[in-house]
Amino acid sequence: MTAVGRRSWVIADGWIPPRSTGDDLALVSHEAACMLNANETPAHVIFTIFFAERDPEGSLSITIPARRILHQNLEKLPGAAIAKGTDYCVLIESDQPIVVQHTRLDSRQAANALMTTIAFPCD
Amino acid sequence: MTAVGRRSWVIADGWIPPRSTGDDLALVSHEAACMLNANETPAHVIFTIFFAERDPEGSLSITIPARRILHQNLEKLPGAAIAKGTDYCVLIESDQPIVVQHTRLDSRQAANALMTTIAFPCD
Amino acid sequence: MTAVGRRSWVIADGWIPPRSTGDDLALVSHEAACMLNANETPAHVIFTIFFAERDPEGSLSITIPARRILHQNLEKLPGAAIAKGTDYCVLIESDQPIVVQHTRLDSRQAANALMTTIAFPCD
Amino acid sequence: MTAVGRRSWVIADGWIPPRSTGDDLALVSHEAACMLNANETPAHVIFTIFFAERDPEGSLSITIPARRILHQNLEKLPGAAIAKGTDYCVLIESDQPIVVQHTRLDSRQAANALMTTIAFPCD
Repeated sequence: MTAVGRRSWVIADGWIPPRSTGDDLALVSHEAACMLNANETPAHVIFTIFFAERDPEGSLSITIPARRILHQNLEKLPGAAIAKGTDYCVLIESDQPIVVQHTRLDSRQAANALMTTIAFPCD
Repeated sequence: MTAVGRRSWVIADGWIPPRSTGDDLALVSHEAACMLNANETPAHVIFTIFFAERDPEGSLSITIPARRILHQNLEKLPGAAIAKGTDYCVLIESDQPIVVQHTRLDSRQAANALMTTIAFPCD
Repeated sequence: MTAVGRRSWVIADGWIPPRSTGDDLALVSHEAACMLNANETPAHVIFTIFFAERDPEGSLSITIPARRILHQNLEKLPGAAIAKGTDYCVLIESDQPIVVQHTRLDSRQAANALMTTIAFPCD
Repeated sequence: MTAVGRRSWVIADGWIPPRSTGDDLALVSHEAACMLNANETPAHVIFTIFFAERDPEGSLSITIPARRILHQNLEKLPGAAIAKGTDYCVLIESDQPIVVQHTRLDSRQAANALMTTIAFPCD
């Protein structure tokens, strides 16, 4: 079987909108790294966050169980501290092949906007 | 002639918005896997749906006739049961090369939002 | 110098929104194939449009001059007849390497929505 | 270690919306080339802007420090003169591997729209 995915991915346009419209928690502005681990073994995934004016923040790790998905809200990444309204990029490295898609929901104005892209596979 | 497409594709940010605004059926919130089969023979396509907290749902199959397209609404995939508002990923495997593009229309708020990306080719 | 682009590209989610909001011509709903020809020679580009329930429409050709761009409105592709509100896919073949990005502007509701993706390179 | 990125990238759908809604500077319509330089050395990046009806504008250069990011507003690219409401494409060449993501915010109508894609890697 072909491996489903790659081991190294980049999200280059990270920016968490600082405000939201409405009371619906699902419509709070956010960014997510949406990941598939189609393997029979867990994937150990390390996030490194890069910034414009300071050193990268690294060694943030999560585990995606075998044959499971994880849509990770990037503001809630364990151990990270990404301020809203700050430019950042993310390098995502996994010991198993995974697939990563980047999505932003922006509800600063009266109707929400969405954007998505498959992240860039580096390996 | 170069093959038009690949045999294995992933959509990583699956999530069907649970509500819609307006009476226009074309503006109901939905997600689609938009596929081209440019070949002279039909493509037999198998979908496997992965979730965060349960085993994948597999062996959902459709056929795209030769030299035809199919924009498949993912909520209406034959045999699948993807609940609205649930995180999922999709692995799409075909016996012929195809191209897959993932699109979401979200009309929860007063004006619709759109997002799209070419899916990730795994082979 | 590295070639800038590829010779065969696919847009898989073609669908021209059938209505628009407002009087601004630039905000009329549309889809575009945005193309760069960075070469020193003109690029001759052939479009084939695929549908769900009828044979493809082919041999639609345009030329992009040397070191020029063309953002082609797909509804206005010379010789083609893509009805609004119809699912389609596009195969774009060029005798010179080009880059293709697919964008939709949808202004059916009160504020416009946008989506974009680099098309899929087949060669 | 695998190189993080590529040295040659294209954005094919460049177009800066000519108007904006609201007083929030962060909601002014714009386009950005969002770039990661994950290397231990600075990246020297050259932009060439291509147009539909005139010669390309080239030799616009910026530097991204080692292990830093740059989300470059394309209207504010040093030395360039991209008019609002004009079709353009961008070729981005770097002496170090980088990753480029293209994003547009369009706030011409009452709620903003977003679109994004990883740019096309040419090398």
